[in-house]
Amino acid sequence: MLPFSRVTIIGFGLIGSSLARAVRREMRDVRLTGYDADAEVRARADALNLFDDITDSAGAAVCDADLVILAVPVQATEAVAKEIAADLPDEAVVSDVGSVKNRVAGWLNDNIPHPGRIVPAHPVAGTENSGPDAGFAELFQSRWCILTPADAADPVAVERLSEFWRRLGSDVEIMDAAHHDIVLAVTSHLPHLIAYTIVGTASDVEEVTNSEVIKYSAGGFRDFTRIAASNPTMWRDVFLANKDAVLDVLQRFTEDLTALQRAIRWDDGDMLFKHFETTRETRRRVIDAGQDTAAPDFGRSPPKGRADAED
Amino acid sequence: MLPFSRVTIIGFGLIGSSLARAVRREMRDVRLTGYDADAEVRARADALNLFDDITDSAGAAVCDADLVILAVPVQATEAVAKEIAADLPDEAVVSDVGSVKNRVAGWLNDNIPHPGRIVPAHPVAGTENSGPDAGFAELFQSRWCILTPADAADPVAVERLSEFWRRLGSDVEIMDAAHHDIVLAVTSHLPHLIAYTIVGTASDVEEVTNSEVIKYSAGGFRDFTRIAASNPTMWRDVFLANKDAVLDVLQRFTEDLTALQRAIRWDDGDMLFKHFETTRETRRRVIDAGQDTAAPDFGRSPPKGRADAED
Repeated sequence: MLPFSRVTIIGFGLIGSSLARAVRREMRDVRLTGYDADAEVRARADALNLFDDITDSAGAAVCDADLVILAVPVQATEAVAKEIAADLPDEAVVSDVGSVKNRVAGWLNDNIPHPGRIVPAHPVAGTENSGPDAGFAELFQSRWCILTPADAADPVAVERLSEFWRRLGSDVEIMDAAHHDIVLAVTSHLPHLIAYTIVGTASDVEEVTNSEVIKYSAGGFRDFTRIAASNPTMWRDVFLANKDAVLDVLQRFTEDLTALQRAIRWDDGDMLFKHFETTRETRRRVIDAGQDTAAPDFGRSPPKGRADAED
Repeated sequence: MLPFSRVTIIGFGLIGSSLARAVRREMRDVRLTGYDADAEVRARADALNLFDDITDSAGAAVCDADLVILAVPVQATEAVAKEIAADLPDEAVVSDVGSVKNRVAGWLNDNIPHPGRIVPAHPVAGTENSGPDAGFAELFQSRWCILTPADAADPVAVERLSEFWRRLGSDVEIMDAAHHDIVLAVTSHLPHLIAYTIVGTASDVEEVTNSEVIKYSAGGFRDFTRIAASNPTMWRDVFLANKDAVLDVLQRFTEDLTALQRAIRWDDGDMLFKHFETTRETRRRVIDAGQDTAAPDFGRSPPKGRADAED
């Protein structure tokens, strides 16, 4: 038994287009309908054959659905919720994929009739690429999907959405929305903000040319450039929608950085060594938890063609 | 013609043991001698058959060499230079692989007789793993190796060492030592310090358990844990030996972070968006320069066995 038979996805970015591909592969009999506000993106999704139907309005996309997933930048949630409210069938479950859950839940609750069927979700998965061409069906496999239903949510809707994500290969976790936002501020939002910052800083040091920054990026910097290549609209929205939690963990980060800075200034090698030993242990636990591979990644294989081109 | 025929490597960590493997593969006729201060590490290198000879003292390792490479943590350079000075053949070229060059050059110049043959070097390559088992012959392929000879250095020694690194697959660049230290402070030392900081911060937020941090690390955090898993001794030494440049770029980073923090607090979405767009461009240039692959890395393949274990 399929958890849903008529699924509508609004937004064809990396997540929306990966969802369409994953549903097509894992739940073949589902009828897939899609809408994106950008006509060019709709045309591209059509060319990629991602959906059974692509409609010209959000309302037309949802009017026959039993599951509607908003896969739009977080700050667009409110407008899309208003757009679809009148056309939503009463029995349709409404969800999203946003990286911030508390604000999103508010926007959905304020605008969607019958809030019992609202089950916000956050698949903790992604790449640094964007758009309908960047998606792939395996994106959610062995990744966590966090559902943050309100107390008033219909337990049947929660269970059906859980099953939907399990079918796509995800592990499902239920969490309080506010707690989700603190956890993700730590594990995702702060890392992205720091990466965006450092890539900017590196470009602005007068003594160092930008081509030097690029040339010697294998010493650590290139990993930050990958994270800092993520979708600008998505991340602007995340920081604004999760402002309180982000500012809180950022304050803690700054204090910790100041302590390390002070240790460097005063030649406190013991303090530095002890700190660096602890963080190494965290890495071991990430690998043990199956959230990354142990294969060394700094020494990436030389890009094809480059070694050959040399003398 | 081989640039050197009797190469001695002091220190069997990731870099030293990779060097031994790379020399063995690319310059078969070179006689390879090694010494490590740790008897257990020497035994392990012996079991791995990394060298033709492993000696019981640094002096014995260098007495017949025409190239001596110190592959030790930066702060150990001075002691090792003193240890080998008396036994060094006059014609031997002396080099190192340290991530900091100005302080290292000083220690070598003060202790090695005939300073004209001193050619400090920094292969910009590495992984997050350490020790003789972590090394591999391909580590230096298509990576930069920066030489920072002083004005007094013998041009023939510089050219021979350049050729040595090119044989190992590296691109060689000559740079002023002080400039090297600023460039690397930006592209490598600051990124490592930030990664070490953020991994510590994440472990200390009271509302979030450590297992939650690990579980949801795919959202960006896991990339920092990889960098923060690097060798603690090596990095303590780097920050202390390159203190001035590191503190300078750290100050700039903090200013930039404060500006982004302020934009979040005051809902300045335009400022955030513009910043995030610029950093994306930097990523494109890193890929164009062959310093990383364009393959999306956030969506790492699910670890083998994990998907199978699920229902």
